[in-house]
Amino acid sequence: MLSLQLISEAAERIQGAIRKTPVDECPILSDLLGVPVWLKLENEQITGSFKARGALFALLKAKDRGDFQVATCSAGNHGKGMAWAARMLGMQVTIFIPNSVDPTKLEGMIRMGADVRTSAFSGYDETEKWALAEATRIGLPFISAFDDELVMAANGGTVAAEVLDQIPDLETLILPVGGGGLSGGASFYIKETRPSCQIVLCQHEESPALKKSIDLGRAVVEMPVIETVAGGLEGGIGRLTFDVLKTRFDSLELLAEPEIKQAMAWVIRHHQMIIEGSAAVVIAACLRKGFRKPKGPTVLVLSGRNVAAATIAQIMHGNPF
Amino acid sequence: MLSLQLISEAAERIQGAIRKTPVDECPILSDLLGVPVWLKLENEQITGSFKARGALFALLKAKDRGDFQVATCSAGNHGKGMAWAARMLGMQVTIFIPNSVDPTKLEGMIRMGADVRTSAFSGYDETEKWALAEATRIGLPFISAFDDELVMAANGGTVAAEVLDQIPDLETLILPVGGGGLSGGASFYIKETRPSCQIVLCQHEESPALKKSIDLGRAVVEMPVIETVAGGLEGGIGRLTFDVLKTRFDSLELLAEPEIKQAMAWVIRHHQMIIEGSAAVVIAACLRKGFRKPKGPTVLVLSGRNVAAATIAQIMHGNPF
Repeated sequence: MLSLQLISEAAERIQGAIRKTPVDECPILSDLLGVPVWLKLENEQITGSFKARGALFALLKAKDRGDFQVATCSAGNHGKGMAWAARMLGMQVTIFIPNSVDPTKLEGMIRMGADVRTSAFSGYDETEKWALAEATRIGLPFISAFDDELVMAANGGTVAAEVLDQIPDLETLILPVGGGGLSGGASFYIKETRPSCQIVLCQHEESPALKKSIDLGRAVVEMPVIETVAGGLEGGIGRLTFDVLKTRFDSLELLAEPEIKQAMAWVIRHHQMIIEGSAAVVIAACLRKGFRKPKGPTVLVLSGRNVAAATIAQIMHGNPF
Repeated sequence: MLSLQLISEAAERIQGAIRKTPVDECPILSDLLGVPVWLKLENEQITGSFKARGALFALLKAKDRGDFQVATCSAGNHGKGMAWAARMLGMQVTIFIPNSVDPTKLEGMIRMGADVRTSAFSGYDETEKWALAEATRIGLPFISAFDDELVMAANGGTVAAEVLDQIPDLETLILPVGGGGLSGGASFYIKETRPSCQIVLCQHEESPALKKSIDLGRAVVEMPVIETVAGGLEGGIGRLTFDVLKTRFDSLELLAEPEIKQAMAWVIRHHQMIIEGSAAVVIAACLRKGFRKPKGPTVLVLSGRNVAAATIAQIMHGNPF
C-alpha cells in the first residue's frame, strides 16, 4: 500500500545515489501568473529524468527479495533509470521497448549494459502486453514503469517531499500525467501532508487517459497510439495509480502538440535548458491565455530532458526567434 | 594574495547560496580517451554559470568593508552573477557591458534589478577601460570580472575543490581560459593540493591571450575584438591571473569557431544539455583527432549555459543529425 511511511523509506534508500535537484525561479511565469513560480529541475536528475528514483527503489526492493534479474517495459526514461540502477546494484535487467523509442534513450540503456528487446509495436500499451507475456515465458519478475506502489512512492512521493522541503509555503503543484507514477505518488504525498495545496495535472489532449478514466469511473489502461514529442504521456493510465489519483487532483489541463513544442522552445529560450515534450506540458499549461491563476507559490515539475537532437533541431526551426 | 586559506574562506562563505553542482559520466569521451571522463556541470549552477561563485564572494567582502554600491564590467555571466548576488545581499551594482552582449544575459541582469549601462564598444577590453573611468567618475569601487584574488579564489578555487572532493583520483582537469579567473583559481588549487594532476587549458584560437602572454613573457591584457559564440573567451588575460597561471598548466589547446559550434551541438545530442561556446571548448579539445590521451580520470569543466536561442537554432541548423 502507498503510504507516507513507504515514501519515507524510498527517500531514505535512494538518498545519495539520487540527486536532490534544485528549484529555479521562473521570473517570467511569476510575472504572468502573479505568484512566485519555481521549476523543480528533474531534468537535471541522474539519467535525465525522475524515473531513476522509482527504478532504484524498485530494484533495491527486488534485491531484498533475492531477485537479481528482472524485466520491465519502458518508453525510455524508466528503462534508462532501470539500466542505471541495475548496473549500480550489480543486477541484470531486461527492458522491452516500443519500436518508436527515442534513439537517445535507447542508446543510454544499451550503454549501461541492459538487455534491450524491441517490440513489433510502436505504442506503449501493446508493447507492455507483449513484455508481460515474454517475462512470464522467460520466468523473470516484472516491474511496471508506473503501476506499482514502490515506483509511485519513489517517483512521485520523493519528488513532492523535496519540493515541500524547498518551498514550504507551496500552494500549487503542477505535474505531467502519463501512466500516473509521478503524479500519483506526488498527489498522494501533497494531499496527506498539505491538503490546502492544489494539484494541477497536465495531459496530452490526444491521449487523455486520466480524463477518460474520470468520465467512465474506471481506469482506462489502453489508449490508441499517437505520434507525439511527448512519448512519456502516451498510453493508458495504471489501475493502482488511477485509484490514488482520482480523488487527489484539483484540475486537469489537456495540451495540444503545437503548444508542447512551443513550450520546449520557450524553456530553451528563457532558461537555456532542454526538456522533453512530456515535461513541457506544465509550461504549456501556464502559457495558455485562459490558465487559472494559482493562489500562491507554485512549483512546476520539469520531469526530464531525454529528447533526440533531431527533435530539438525541428522545434528550433519551427519556433523561430 | 591567492592562497588555500582564501579558497577555503570563499567555499565556506558561498556555501548554501551556491549549488554544489554534480559531475556526470561522459561514456562517449571515456571510450574515446580510454580513461573515465566526467563533466563538472557548472552549466547547472545558479545564474547558469560558475561566475555566481566569485560574484557572491566579492560582494560579501565588499559588504564587510562597508561598500553597499559597486561597479563592474562584464560580457555577461559575471554581470548576471553580480546582479543575482547583489539582489540577495541587498546591495546595488552598476554593470558596464559591451554592446555585443548576448540578449539572454542582458535580460537576466535587468530582471534582477541591476543598473546596466551599455558601452559604445563591442569588445570587452575597450568596454572595461570605459567602465573603469566611469566608476572613478561616479565614485564606485570597481570589481574585476576575473583579475581579482577574491574572484579567482571563489570562481576557480571552489570549483576545483569540489571536483577533487567528487573525483579524488583526478589526473587531468580540462578548463576554458578567458580572463583567467576560473582557470587561475582552479590551477592554483590543483597544483597546491594534487601536483601530479595535469591542467589542460582551452582557448579560442582567434583570441589566444594566454598563448601570446607566454610567448612574450608578460600578460597581454588587450586583444583585437573577434566575433564568436564564445564571448567569455574573447579579450586579454589579467595581470594577476597570468601571474598565477603561467607556471601552473601543462598544455594549451587553441580551438576554432566551427569546432566550438560542433561541440555545442554534440553536448545537445549526447547529454541533452545546452552549454555556451565558452564552455564547449573543453569538449571540442577532447573530440580532436590529435588530442593527447590523459593518463587517468579526467574532468571537463562545463562553465555555463547562457546562450541565446537564436544561436542554438543556428548551431542545430548548421550541424544536422
